[in-house]
Order: sequence, then structure tokens, then C-alpha cells
Amino acid sequence: MKEAELKKIRKAFCERVRELRKAKGFSQEEFGYECGLHRTYMGDVERGERNISIDNIAKIAKALGVEIGELF
Amino acid sequence: MKEAELKKIRKAFCERVRELRKAKGFSQEEFGYECGLHRTYMGDVERGERNISIDNIAKIAKALGVEIGELF
Repeated sequence: MKEAELKKIRKAFCERVRELRKAKGFSQEEFGYECGLHRTYMGDVERGERNISIDNIAKIAKALGVEIGELF
Repeated sequence: MKEAELKKIRKAFCERVRELRKAKGFSQEEFGYECGLHRTYMGDVERGERNISIDNIAKIAKALGVEIGELF
């Protein structure tokens, strides 16, 4: 799978997370706290700079109150 | 988020991957090859022993011909 395809997927994921986080009225810092993840890590995730793992994806989905599948 | 919850999510994911892989008629080895991932890594994933990343989840979804959201 090409790097460009993977980047596109990360980008779509991070945009979706940002959109849902804002809809919930969370700042990045508050949201990191809700997820149990560091705010700088959350910033990296929202810029698509992290190859985020299933455990952290699950934490984000839970904090947003959505199913994991809805993040993709 | 509790360790048990995270394990449950990994378990559901790995069962879904195994089910779809078998439905496609792939052995674990063939499937690893299709995904561009090592067969021993695929075995670990299917046992829920890996905190798999979004990039590798994307490779698996592509090899299975499904959307990422369908794996959850």
C-alpha cells in the first residue's frame, strides 16, 4: 500500500476526530484529558503525524461517545 | 479506559479479521503477503496480541476489500 494512500486515511481520520471533538465543545487539551492522552499527542494525531494504535483509537471513540467504525 | 475494555475491542477486531480472511479463502500466510505484513505479525494480530496501528489496519482492510469502519 502506497505511503500516499496511508496518509490520505490518516488525514480523513484526523479530520473526523477534530470535527467531532469541536462538535462536543472540547478544546484539544480538555479532549486529551477526556481520552487519557497527552494534549501534545492529541495535536499530533489531529495533524495526522501519528500512526495511532487501536487502543488509542478506542479511547478517542469512547471520549466522543461514538463507535470506532464511525471514526472512519 | 480499563485494560479489559481495550482487550475486548482488540478481541472483536481480531475475530472480525479472521472471519473475513477465511471468507476470502486466505491462509494466514497468504493473507500476510496480501497485506504486506509478516505472517507471524498477522498471527499476533489475530490473537489480539498487537496494539495494531491505523496504517496496518488500513492495509488489512484493503486486502480484504472492505472499508476500515467495517472491521469494527
